[in-house]
Amino acid sequence: MLDSCSRWTHAEEQVARTAFDQAYQRETKSLIEVVRERAGAIAELDDIWALHDFLSARRFDIDGKYDREQPGLLFSLAQLVKEGWLQLDDLQELDPNKRAKVSALANM
Amino acid sequence: MLDSCSRWTHAEEQVARTAFDQAYQRETKSLIEVVRERAGAIAELDDIWALHDFLSARRFDIDGKYDREQPGLLFSLAQLVKEGWLQLDDLQELDPNKRAKVSALANM
Repeated sequence: MLDSCSRWTHAEEQVARTAFDQAYQRETKSLIEVVRERAGAIAELDDIWALHDFLSARRFDIDGKYDREQPGLLFSLAQLVKEGWLQLDDLQELDPNKRAKVSALANM
Repeated sequence: MLDSCSRWTHAEEQVARTAFDQAYQRETKSLIEVVRERAGAIAELDDIWALHDFLSARRFDIDGKYDREQPGLLFSLAQLVKEGWLQLDDLQELDPNKRAKVSALANM
């Protein structure tokens, strides 16, 4: 299982890239909605600083999460599944062993 | 002039405190409007990070600017006049020498 998980065919890389793009679009869209909603509810300066804290945390999280480098790819995909930005169905074309590993990591 | 600028009566402290509160309310109100406007125009993730950068800069600026400690009080008032959050008219009840110093510092 280790072997088929460490080798990535061109087609599999394409599947992962597409999955990343999907998750990124979903998370981005959701974040835009949340920011608009929070901005609309701002009544005082503390609300603005709370929005700033929220954005700082989201930026740190998103910057680190969409790592497309191969060594961490399965972990990155698993994290996105865990958070609901990806479904295992989005990875159907991936090698079954890789999908199983993503699923296991997502449930940890 | 130095003497009357370094001594603060209770009444003058009250004038400065009121002026600070006015400037703070004006700047806060303006910032809330700007943030709402920018948030409404967010179309993609880069717009969100641009808003985050903007808020980081504003927070740094505002946190430092509303310093009510006596040693820096005239400088703080002058900075608020320079930026338009205070008018010299808001400081009419202040000792004339202090007002002159605020005016001079605001024009530097």
